[in-house]
Amino acid sequence: MSQLLDNVVGELAKLPGVGRRTALRLAMHILRMDPAEVGEMTAAMSDFRNHIRYCVRCNNLSDTELCPICADPSRDRSTVCIVEQVKDVISIENTRQYNGVYHVLGGVISPMQGIGPSDLKIDLLLDNIARGGIKEVILALSTTVEGETTVFYISRRLAQCEGVKVSTIARGIGFGDELDYADELTIAHALHNRTAVK
Amino acid sequence: MSQLLDNVVGELAKLPGVGRRTALRLAMHILRMDPAEVGEMTAAMSDFRNHIRYCVRCNNLSDTELCPICADPSRDRSTVCIVEQVKDVISIENTRQYNGVYHVLGGVISPMQGIGPSDLKIDLLLDNIARGGIKEVILALSTTVEGETTVFYISRRLAQCEGVKVSTIARGIGFGDELDYADELTIAHALHNRTAVK
Repeated sequence: MSQLLDNVVGELAKLPGVGRRTALRLAMHILRMDPAEVGEMTAAMSDFRNHIRYCVRCNNLSDTELCPICADPSRDRSTVCIVEQVKDVISIENTRQYNGVYHVLGGVISPMQGIGPSDLKIDLLLDNIARGGIKEVILALSTTVEGETTVFYISRRLAQCEGVKVSTIARGIGFGDELDYADELTIAHALHNRTAVK
Repeated sequence: MSQLLDNVVGELAKLPGVGRRTALRLAMHILRMDPAEVGEMTAAMSDFRNHIRYCVRCNNLSDTELCPICADPSRDRSTVCIVEQVKDVISIENTRQYNGVYHVLGGVISPMQGIGPSDLKIDLLLDNIARGGIKEVILALSTTVEGETTVFYISRRLAQCEGVKVSTIARGIGFGDELDYADELTIAHALHNRTAVK
């Protein structure tokens, strides 16, 4: 096999979910692309890796010291939504239903993977709260054991912050889900936290 | 969203089979990679696109004028296996059962996609045969309508070449396949071309 082809296939196969077969298909696509387009793609990859920063306030990915959300004066700074990772910010932003700011933890507490509270950006959150102005903290973490552990840990740490309302996003049956496929814990929780039909 | 992130997601989403969701996952992986590793990956992509060549004899991808297979003196130059694309060469090489050389057509005749015989490297094949030394041509194309049309077309063109045996690879039930799932045409062909049990 050609060394150049072997090389690009080997490199692309390092990406998650990309085996040698898929890598070869990607390489063939690159071959059909205009050299300038390939240049743009590789430049975007390098620039992203070399110049991306973390927002000093919320730990979101950012091009500048403050991310666009933290820098936006129209956002409500008194409400902070705590998420695990950057893509959760994008998911919530896509709903267009939230006008507060975010705080990206960078993971959840997971003793199995050796991730403890000190590996997450919890101190930065407490610093932000200590600076004043934050009235509500919404925990929007996964409903996994790790996520729930993190919710428990953070809510304990926040209990000492006076005047800050702490909540988690609602757990229940998702829209479009069939009750049939929901697990007992979810159904039990959804029953318990039933809401009045207006 | 960060412009750098938006940019890399947009670029990666141009790859086949990669949507914005997968692109974001790939971007997050790139973020965790060492900058030097990202450099190696983007260099491999650019080098491949800018420096890859086509073997002047067989149209396979190559770093040099002749591909490693055509340049290998231990390969049997009297047998040529005709394939549609580069990855078919790799598939056949992986069997370690073939010691001849290849000829990469670069596609199959497909009027629907506007690909005619003149778009394929058929003249190069005929030139190679005219130069002498080729005794057998094996057509290893897909069993699609386009593949079969191409087999028919090429075998007609080769009929004028004296002393050249033309064959296609065997069609039938693949190893590990259940008869149950095979279509009627395949079963009928497999029955017709039954081989004696030794």
